[in-house]
Amino acid sequence: MPINPDAVGAEGGPVERSWDARQCMLYALGVGCGVDELQFDTEKNQQVLPTFAVIIGGGGAPLGSAGEFNPAMLVHGEQAIELLRPIPAKGKLESRGKITAVWDKGSGAVIETESQSIDLETGEPLLRTRSSMFIRGEGGFGGERGPSAEKFEPGRDPDVEVTYSTRIDQALIYRLSGDMNPLHSDPDFAKMGGFDAPILHGLCTYGFTGRALLHGLCGGDPTRFKSMAGRFSRPVIPGDELTVKMWVNGGDARFQTVNQNGEVVLDQGRFTFSD
Amino acid sequence: MPINPDAVGAEGGPVERSWDARQCMLYALGVGCGVDELQFDTEKNQQVLPTFAVIIGGGGAPLGSAGEFNPAMLVHGEQAIELLRPIPAKGKLESRGKITAVWDKGSGAVIETESQSIDLETGEPLLRTRSSMFIRGEGGFGGERGPSAEKFEPGRDPDVEVTYSTRIDQALIYRLSGDMNPLHSDPDFAKMGGFDAPILHGLCTYGFTGRALLHGLCGGDPTRFKSMAGRFSRPVIPGDELTVKMWVNGGDARFQTVNQNGEVVLDQGRFTFSD
Repeated sequence: MPINPDAVGAEGGPVERSWDARQCMLYALGVGCGVDELQFDTEKNQQVLPTFAVIIGGGGAPLGSAGEFNPAMLVHGEQAIELLRPIPAKGKLESRGKITAVWDKGSGAVIETESQSIDLETGEPLLRTRSSMFIRGEGGFGGERGPSAEKFEPGRDPDVEVTYSTRIDQALIYRLSGDMNPLHSDPDFAKMGGFDAPILHGLCTYGFTGRALLHGLCGGDPTRFKSMAGRFSRPVIPGDELTVKMWVNGGDARFQTVNQNGEVVLDQGRFTFSD
Repeated sequence: MPINPDAVGAEGGPVERSWDARQCMLYALGVGCGVDELQFDTEKNQQVLPTFAVIIGGGGAPLGSAGEFNPAMLVHGEQAIELLRPIPAKGKLESRGKITAVWDKGSGAVIETESQSIDLETGEPLLRTRSSMFIRGEGGFGGERGPSAEKFEPGRDPDVEVTYSTRIDQALIYRLSGDMNPLHSDPDFAKMGGFDAPILHGLCTYGFTGRALLHGLCGGDPTRFKSMAGRFSRPVIPGDELTVKMWVNGGDARFQTVNQNGEVVLDQGRFTFSD
């Protein structure tokens, strides 16, 4: 079955997921927290990184209803999260999702999904996620092309910059949070996929970027972190240095994450936060 | 109840423990494996580090029958493991243990235990462990002093040396394998315990040392690793560099682990291996 543009509107779920304090700590280590961020990577006055939303959220989006395709051809395009409440260190949620768009880009198909999650302890909405996946080689099914990405041109120097180094073995820690695709660990598999070496998980870059936004704009307080969206534009290799550049306008910010060569790896970032 | 020397011979168990491939990977990362040891820290042709025995073994030793004491006063003295078969990446074992000695050292008590574990999949013996715990402040109960530690004086330069760096945040990763004592993560708690900073788990040092023995003497092959014993002699601080010095005599070796200042942190090491 090729890509099916009529899948737009297809709904899925409910899907339940539970998590505990230890998983939050492991995730924090996976996205680079160390001895200066014990509130995230140990149980001491534990808080949860807002980007942990990508680990527990996103359930219920019925990607399969948009067609059958080789998962090895799937590339993460965009990722957005919205936190309605801070994530507790231990909990259980229920997610429902849907397909919101299917685009024909010629060289591939884009499938956009969204998902909403309710905290099953309180019955209150906890978080929302949106993702787009690019499926290489699955274009040409006669669908609409969809909107083009706007080019982000801030026109001035960033207001805030935060730089973190990733580690050579960053992906080996990050993958234990769930995405064990060997593209991120196995040099032979990465070569078959057309890469010189294993690449970092896009969502690991996303987590580093979220930490930079949290510390750069929210004083490290997860309750001030409201939403974050961005587009993956280039692979990151474990060991790369990541600099998050932020342009602030009140409680809104635009951001870009660049590597040590100044190449943009996460583009068109949008972030909202409270005082 | 003070220390009870009549507890010698007390038996405990059976205790069951199961583990999976992911726990073996997390342990490997905790003791310093990186991108050069994918066979231990990923599922690619996965093997298990022999020192993972300290995580899954040791069950059933009835330490409580030797008296009640404050666990904060307990210090790991010696640790020995014996591998009867390589540890599978996923499994379930059953352990029985006993108290083998109780000594009165004046400043504290020493309790020695041993434990044997059977692989519940095959019914075959899998591993044995021996530990001694020093309990500060619990001496003076009128027991025997027990044998003194011999001083290890090799009299010649080591035959093999392997050096690894630990990381500043090494304990934060290692503790997710099970020992979440805040002495290894929380600066305030460490100060209350009389340390300037959190110290590394003794068993993390033990794991680094086991890796050095495995690569230095067994060509990296866990099936050649038979037994390893040593005595913790000095705290290691995360970030320390560890050098394992090995003196070889056929399939036996003596070893010492020293820090970057040449101070011995794991002493009186004994290791056996096969060709």
